[in-house]
Amino acid sequence: MKTIAVDGMGGDNAPEAIVKGIEMARDDFPDLQFQLYGDEGQLTKLLKNSERITIVPTTEVVTGEDEPTRAVRRKKDSSLVRAALAAKSGEADAFYSAGNTGAVLTAGVLLVGRIKGIERPGLITVFPTVHEDQQFLMLDVGANAESKPSYLHQFALMGQFYAHDVLGLDHPRVGLLNNGTEADKGDSLHKAVHDLLEKDPDINFVGNVEATNLFNAPADVVVTDGFTGNATLKTMEGTASTLMHLLKANLMDNGLRPKLGALLAKPALKKLATMFDADRAGGAVLIGVNAPVVKSHGNSDENAVYYVQKQLRAMLNHGTVQSVIQYFSTHTEETVAAAKEE
Amino acid sequence: MKTIAVDGMGGDNAPEAIVKGIEMARDDFPDLQFQLYGDEGQLTKLLKNSERITIVPTTEVVTGEDEPTRAVRRKKDSSLVRAALAAKSGEADAFYSAGNTGAVLTAGVLLVGRIKGIERPGLITVFPTVHEDQQFLMLDVGANAESKPSYLHQFALMGQFYAHDVLGLDHPRVGLLNNGTEADKGDSLHKAVHDLLEKDPDINFVGNVEATNLFNAPADVVVTDGFTGNATLKTMEGTASTLMHLLKANLMDNGLRPKLGALLAKPALKKLATMFDADRAGGAVLIGVNAPVVKSHGNSDENAVYYVQKQLRAMLNHGTVQSVIQYFSTHTEETVAAAKEE
Repeated sequence: MKTIAVDGMGGDNAPEAIVKGIEMARDDFPDLQFQLYGDEGQLTKLLKNSERITIVPTTEVVTGEDEPTRAVRRKKDSSLVRAALAAKSGEADAFYSAGNTGAVLTAGVLLVGRIKGIERPGLITVFPTVHEDQQFLMLDVGANAESKPSYLHQFALMGQFYAHDVLGLDHPRVGLLNNGTEADKGDSLHKAVHDLLEKDPDINFVGNVEATNLFNAPADVVVTDGFTGNATLKTMEGTASTLMHLLKANLMDNGLRPKLGALLAKPALKKLATMFDADRAGGAVLIGVNAPVVKSHGNSDENAVYYVQKQLRAMLNHGTVQSVIQYFSTHTEETVAAAKEE
Repeated sequence: MKTIAVDGMGGDNAPEAIVKGIEMARDDFPDLQFQLYGDEGQLTKLLKNSERITIVPTTEVVTGEDEPTRAVRRKKDSSLVRAALAAKSGEADAFYSAGNTGAVLTAGVLLVGRIKGIERPGLITVFPTVHEDQQFLMLDVGANAESKPSYLHQFALMGQFYAHDVLGLDHPRVGLLNNGTEADKGDSLHKAVHDLLEKDPDINFVGNVEATNLFNAPADVVVTDGFTGNATLKTMEGTASTLMHLLKANLMDNGLRPKLGALLAKPALKKLATMFDADRAGGAVLIGVNAPVVKSHGNSDENAVYYVQKQLRAMLNHGTVQSVIQYFSTHTEETVAAAKEE
């Protein structure tokens, strides 16, 4: 039985959506139990069935306006901090929150703690592709603003473990997001990373990939620095939502004919929305810390909360974090560099 | 009368689409004349009316496979190099090509030449927004892989001149693409740029903008480093084309009902396609060199070629390049820094 520590007060729809989603997950996954951190009165009222769900009362809440580091340091009895500490102490096996992104990342790094040998944890997001039932993941999508080549080298290795365990891929293909596919493309950072990935026999490197065709799945694991990855993720979100918004507006505003068209086209639009439903892929995973840590969108509804538990269950059952810990206990950047010298 | 030097052999649809587009522009813009560089036999056969269009015979062609710098150095009698040299010598006032992007940029920087005081020319692309008849521009979208704060400072100033002259905005708002809107966001590069833009009284700086809502036009001029800008541009293209492709596939593949829906929804889809028609905004402008240089998509058709001439005409009639030359003759990074010290 694995235990997930849940921030019951994080996100726009908390605590309702969190409680509902956790109850759904409890019903579907008999090998999971949950610690629900938050306001005792509210949570007790919302919880229908307390089987494998323990409410842990806390008195503070980290809001979206809180400065992350300050909030994690000061709000010691917040649902977010207490849930993170449970994953640190081993009381729980994983930590989940839909709250303040910066605070969740800070709690992950400072409280759950960096894995020995990992220079910087990275943030993974999973995306759909044009091929049904095929996904790809990208990291780092924003945990780090500044990057060194060795960080991205470690992201590639950690991304492989995640793609193997959670996406179910035997030999995930690793690509480097760059401004061209040729090996010598990019700035000095990306040229150096290309070199590191190419030389590491533990990485199934397929070369540089471009943002233009990410959805055609040129790689299963797309490695990028946190600044570019964050811009890419946000551009995808912005472009997709703008197009869908304009399409709907144009369908509705042009009189009867397009309105009728919209009605008839609805199943196709719905199918598209399902394919691009970010919730189904789960939340963003902070990888490189001592327990699975997942942050889902602030506007997560009960379904999004449910899918995160499914995602955490896959990581827990495969021991993804243990694999990373084990690998980096013997593969520091120094030992890898030394092996190459020989 | 202004003269545009045109690479008649550049792009997938050359020389047909180039000649057709130039003839359309000649018919519409009586104040423009054209030098058409390329294979004399082919161009003569295609050209219907030689009024204000002079064919300049050349014997070589730069292909998409050519290594840019090498091609510009070696293929001295190529249509691309000869057209660029005409803009350098003053024989022509501007240079346009739909050919090898790297070669066009290299020819722009090396042959047309950097403006005195400009550290690095930048590449501008214009985008639509959700507001009809409103556009924004972004630079650098990929002329430079490595960046320094001062490059981005100059991009902001040059972007303002372009937005004023070509987008017709009196006081264009300048935003910095960053991984959050707060002033202290980003890596060291973007923090330093924020500082430079904020302190320059010649810049109408509105702060950091995020990729999520670029299409809502939080700024008219979006300043970014060439690596991030390139990834953002390519992500927009990839996401939009993937969504449109999937929408069409879903509309067509699901039996009669969605097919009928598609037929009825067609006007809305068409309107959307027009709004997002990259061709209408013209090509990508290399700014910071001694004459207007525009590169359009390799798959440019005659309409795309036509719109580039309209765009070049706006730059020429407003003297955008002259404004940049004048401004930077008295505002070097040193004089600006010195003024701030006082």
